[in-house]
Amino acid sequence: MTLDVQALLATLTLEEKASLLDGADFWRTQPVERLGIPGVMVTDGPHGLRKQAGESDHVGLNDSVPATCFPPAAGLASTWDTGLLARIGEALGRECRAEQVAVLLGPGVNMKRSPLCGRNFEYFSEDPLLAGELGAALVNGLQSTGVGASLKHFAANNQETDRMTVSADVDERTLREIYLPAFERVVTGAQPWTVMCAYNKINGTYASEDPWLLTQVLRDEWGFEGLVVSDWGAVNRRDAGVAAGLDLEMPSSGGAGTRVILDAVRAGTLSEADVDRAATRVLTLINRALPALHEGQSFDADTHHALAREAATASAVLLKNEGGILPLDPAGGGPVAVIGEFARTPRFQGAGSSQVNPTRVDTALDALRAALDGRREVTFAPGFVIESDAADEGLVAEAVRAAAAADVAVLFLGLPASYESEGYDRDHMDLPAHQLDLLHAVADANPRVVVVLSNGSVVTVAPWQDRARAVLEGWLLGQAGGSATADLLLGAADPAGRLAETVPVRFTDNPTIGAFPGELGHVRYGEGLLIGYRWYDAHRLEVAYPFGHGLSYTSFGYSDLSVSVLADGDDPRVEVSVTVTNTGGRPGRETVQLYVTDPQASVYRPEQELRAFTQVALGPGESAPVTLTLGARAFAFWHEGARGWVVEGGEFGVRVGASSRDIRLTGTVTLTGPGYAVPLTAESTVDMWLAHPAAGSWLREQLGTGLFTDMLSDPANGQMMRAIPLVRLSRFPGFPVTEPDVEAAVQRFTTR
Amino acid sequence: MTLDVQALLATLTLEEKASLLDGADFWRTQPVERLGIPGVMVTDGPHGLRKQAGESDHVGLNDSVPATCFPPAAGLASTWDTGLLARIGEALGRECRAEQVAVLLGPGVNMKRSPLCGRNFEYFSEDPLLAGELGAALVNGLQSTGVGASLKHFAANNQETDRMTVSADVDERTLREIYLPAFERVVTGAQPWTVMCAYNKINGTYASEDPWLLTQVLRDEWGFEGLVVSDWGAVNRRDAGVAAGLDLEMPSSGGAGTRVILDAVRAGTLSEADVDRAATRVLTLINRALPALHEGQSFDADTHHALAREAATASAVLLKNEGGILPLDPAGGGPVAVIGEFARTPRFQGAGSSQVNPTRVDTALDALRAALDGRREVTFAPGFVIESDAADEGLVAEAVRAAAAADVAVLFLGLPASYESEGYDRDHMDLPAHQLDLLHAVADANPRVVVVLSNGSVVTVAPWQDRARAVLEGWLLGQAGGSATADLLLGAADPAGRLAETVPVRFTDNPTIGAFPGELGHVRYGEGLLIGYRWYDAHRLEVAYPFGHGLSYTSFGYSDLSVSVLADGDDPRVEVSVTVTNTGGRPGRETVQLYVTDPQASVYRPEQELRAFTQVALGPGESAPVTLTLGARAFAFWHEGARGWVVEGGEFGVRVGASSRDIRLTGTVTLTGPGYAVPLTAESTVDMWLAHPAAGSWLREQLGTGLFTDMLSDPANGQMMRAIPLVRLSRFPGFPVTEPDVEAAVQRFTTR
Repeated sequence: MTLDVQALLATLTLEEKASLLDGADFWRTQPVERLGIPGVMVTDGPHGLRKQAGESDHVGLNDSVPATCFPPAAGLASTWDTGLLARIGEALGRECRAEQVAVLLGPGVNMKRSPLCGRNFEYFSEDPLLAGELGAALVNGLQSTGVGASLKHFAANNQETDRMTVSADVDERTLREIYLPAFERVVTGAQPWTVMCAYNKINGTYASEDPWLLTQVLRDEWGFEGLVVSDWGAVNRRDAGVAAGLDLEMPSSGGAGTRVILDAVRAGTLSEADVDRAATRVLTLINRALPALHEGQSFDADTHHALAREAATASAVLLKNEGGILPLDPAGGGPVAVIGEFARTPRFQGAGSSQVNPTRVDTALDALRAALDGRREVTFAPGFVIESDAADEGLVAEAVRAAAAADVAVLFLGLPASYESEGYDRDHMDLPAHQLDLLHAVADANPRVVVVLSNGSVVTVAPWQDRARAVLEGWLLGQAGGSATADLLLGAADPAGRLAETVPVRFTDNPTIGAFPGELGHVRYGEGLLIGYRWYDAHRLEVAYPFGHGLSYTSFGYSDLSVSVLADGDDPRVEVSVTVTNTGGRPGRETVQLYVTDPQASVYRPEQELRAFTQVALGPGESAPVTLTLGARAFAFWHEGARGWVVEGGEFGVRVGASSRDIRLTGTVTLTGPGYAVPLTAESTVDMWLAHPAAGSWLREQLGTGLFTDMLSDPANGQMMRAIPLVRLSRFPGFPVTEPDVEAAVQRFTTR
Repeated sequence: MTLDVQALLATLTLEEKASLLDGADFWRTQPVERLGIPGVMVTDGPHGLRKQAGESDHVGLNDSVPATCFPPAAGLASTWDTGLLARIGEALGRECRAEQVAVLLGPGVNMKRSPLCGRNFEYFSEDPLLAGELGAALVNGLQSTGVGASLKHFAANNQETDRMTVSADVDERTLREIYLPAFERVVTGAQPWTVMCAYNKINGTYASEDPWLLTQVLRDEWGFEGLVVSDWGAVNRRDAGVAAGLDLEMPSSGGAGTRVILDAVRAGTLSEADVDRAATRVLTLINRALPALHEGQSFDADTHHALAREAATASAVLLKNEGGILPLDPAGGGPVAVIGEFARTPRFQGAGSSQVNPTRVDTALDALRAALDGRREVTFAPGFVIESDAADEGLVAEAVRAAAAADVAVLFLGLPASYESEGYDRDHMDLPAHQLDLLHAVADANPRVVVVLSNGSVVTVAPWQDRARAVLEGWLLGQAGGSATADLLLGAADPAGRLAETVPVRFTDNPTIGAFPGELGHVRYGEGLLIGYRWYDAHRLEVAYPFGHGLSYTSFGYSDLSVSVLADGDDPRVEVSVTVTNTGGRPGRETVQLYVTDPQASVYRPEQELRAFTQVALGPGESAPVTLTLGARAFAFWHEGARGWVVEGGEFGVRVGASSRDIRLTGTVTLTGPGYAVPLTAESTVDMWLAHPAAGSWLREQLGTGLFTDMLSDPANGQMMRAIPLVRLSRFPGFPVTEPDVEAAVQRFTTR
């Protein structure tokens, strides 16, 4: 079945078209039964299907049907593995088809501006390239099954506090270079069927009614072809939203939105053409969805669980591994004390709209017991009550006894679920104090401590990590996290995860101190481009673990950097090649990271920026060539004057390495760039005028050999004089160029 | 002679009135000879008179008549001595009268936002209270002589790069709490005859044509009664400036400005009343100036030189003094090696419009030789050429020989004049490398090194200061700096200077990394309130020397803190008393600093803020009580919603100490404050509605005991639900309050 969109548009009444722009209930679009237009279902994601069982409640938070719970984005991002993300997308698509879901509401590609954002577990990274590449892979995989994605939350939704009203006050260059590129990359690289607008305002305008955002940037510049849906409850003025490009309001407004639309059309403040355009997009979405929406489809829960386990294995990041304490020998050895409630009761996803009802849940304790069965004794002590604020001395004593009697203590620490959720932000980034007290007590009893972390958002490790020989950052690993953790601890799998965000030394090192979550309706993105590693690099701050970091049980060498310009000029392309060698004794997978620097720009540029990455799996002793290609955007910055991307000719640095602070090879490349000119204005300084070939000659001629020429070249004051706008100097008594002369010269020298 | 302003206004033609709003030349206002209206002269300051000799040139940078060069503001600020500043103001007034100058163009009270600002030497501090108190004292002193001040550069002129066109993009709270209060304090506390508008734009509007700045804030809110003059060349659209409150254009526009004004009045886009108002202010200024403008006045250069010496002595800050190496014994001892060209050729002021032609110049070398004559041998080696980029090996070798043969090496290091000036900013904050090489060579030869610094803007000391036993930060000390330095080194005077700005460990620690000096016409004040110590405190950054720091040759104890509420409610006043004791062996003067904290505010507040200070001179063993009084502003923040200053009831912290990081006594005070209410709106969250006494009851009643009440109190998701704006929730299907209900409730509960 396919709807004939053009024919329907001609047949539908205005009222029916307007009704299509509202939900039917919490999860379904509005049908028009008269014309056989069905409603379709959309449901929460993104790391698993959250389709509410039975009748939907009014706020959409009831129990949902069982579905595979993959690791949330904080975990998946650490895989840096686009192929894996695509396969997860496909699996999500199969689960959607089995439940006849047309659109899965994800992925979320917002930047991790502050470590405190309560929803960071649902987001990928502090770096827009990494978030965009992973998001695009997931969307491509999902949509390859005939199920749509909803790219969210567009845009600048980087906190939960006041998320429904706060204005993200952020300059355009920062938006263009930091907060929008992940969306841009997913749109241009995967054409998600839908984009979900954010709750918040950007520079005072609600995202849900911002024509610059929803139409100019999203459609006109990026070529988005799908539908824009509101975040649930994000509509403010529905008529302004339709005009701006917000097609579909969700959930149902109970008819309120439709009434506003109809009133506006009747009053002449909203054109029927805008309604038609939005209705066309709704009908087109239904058309796209219908082929996959038939009964009798299913998915294999075991296969998907295995994929969830593969993903979890790839998501954990081995932060430290002193003396090679990991992997633990699975073949034999002294007792292993497993300590911490999280080993038995894993925290594997975050709270809020993304919470999946898993098909099953592996625990690390069970998985370790099974894997070591008969070969090493496994003891367990819960150590603490997860949601408690204080230590349980009995549990601590039991844990200390277990540690003392063991060869090694594997201590599962993490954030209680109540610490981080959609809907509110954290107010600190520490683990609960009583868990750290337990760590100290355990480490006093047995210094051979391995810490496994469960946390959706980054936590401080600097104050305590010297008490652990190894730290495995597990983020939230989904329903198979327990078995994956056992695989990693025992060396059945090699840790290949790499940090998608910096682990700072202290909370107070972070860029948003004093400017998060804002106040009185505004949050100032004062740090501009400098979030994540860009900040820590700019301020030369020591970090606990840098962006891109992650250990393996093997090691990798880098050699033979070569940088070649494939094309220069209007559309530069640069190829960077290196050879990567597995220099250790086990197979492993290395993530090769390429950072670009622009040390001599006319604007401030971050010290280095991730511009490409790839992965290579190598057996012991194996080598492989790796080639990465950089396009214009790898070198460009957003030029507010030129209103576009500019590659400024000159020398760029190329850094290849295993993390942002483990650069192994560096090179340079010189590009002429496409060239650009910011036109001279009357306000341009004398220096800018003199630097212009034609205008410079003219000005020198006017100045002649008089007093002003002397002043402008005076060693003491010349620089100050030359920094004066020409038009301003023209008002100084006796200056040989008048204000009208300047205006005429602007016309003469800037007409092209 | 007094002009009858009202009569003149009635007699002057429109053309004549408009002509009064332009300069006659570079330094004089326009006369109207027909009516006997004289022009008056204004000249550069602020730390000395810079009246150009003979005919003024076209850009005002020719030689000027000799005048006493007091320490520039960077030095004077370190005195924290309002009485001294007032006496300097009086001296400046006497010199103006001797030269028949009506207005001295200063002081400049802009904040030191970045250590790189080229004009920081002309500004007082990173703290608005300190800058405002010192500026007000100087203006009161100056104007007590019948000569006017020109408070500059109003406002947010915190850099030289692109200063004529850049827009300082800064939120209002930051303007109100950081960038405006020093101006406010001088206006309300000293009524300067004139205020000079800045070159730059603020949030896109030129200061020279900003009615909010020049009229609403300056006159309507602060009660300014004087005249606003343009910075030299700051006029953009002259007619808009007149309407906004820019009365006088300087220097002469050669009639261009007058033509624009007349055209606008004739076109009806500018009212003649605006011209009358500005002309009235010009005539009033002339009236104020005339009594002092008679021939035959003079000043005593020796007396003023002595005052300059006193000021210089009070301006230097003793940063460190290991093992009490200072003071040097003037009565006898081994040879003193004086090293460094600055000892012979002092750098005592900055470059640009403030450069004074001094009546004479003391050198430290001469002063030390004179003071030690016959008692200790003084050798001298220049060590380096000041403006050179590289070491002179011969000079280094000579310096090392001198140091090796001496008991102590006093090494004069500093910034070359070309490093800092009006008109451009620095690009780093280090001393020249070859000077530091000399330090290392000298310290290798003789570890008993004392460094004396000459620099207008702060320099890094952390990389090298371990090579010096003592460091005396001399800033720029004016024409008597040499003798003052000798007085301090030999103990003839006690160092009482305290830092008016933080000395950071590294340049990259500073708050404006990536956001100074901006680009493409904009500079983002992204750090908001957090400049200076507010930043270093918020980020828990170690500093080389904190704001307020300075050693003495004696020591001080603090005791007996008492905090009492003199008044609460609408106009709170709090009295803080301590006892200060000179616990050392010499007389000295302590600067008692009072910082206030607001740990539980509804908005972000800096960790601590200087709210009062005073000085007390004590002989050895002496004690004295010190009382400081705090008014409402000491506790208030600028509330963007309430559009005013708000004291939020609760507990405040009171910290009394010798520097921002040497707090000796702490206390608390609880204020109810005047109370304020930010009205409920439809967008207020459910939490905000529930917190309102009447509206909360109403809403609870509406919600009843149904599903939504359960959801709002749900432990897992309740917080998220309660953070939703009520009007947004009213669109959810089944919610018991409709959008019209909410609108009605807003009316009902916010009408007062």
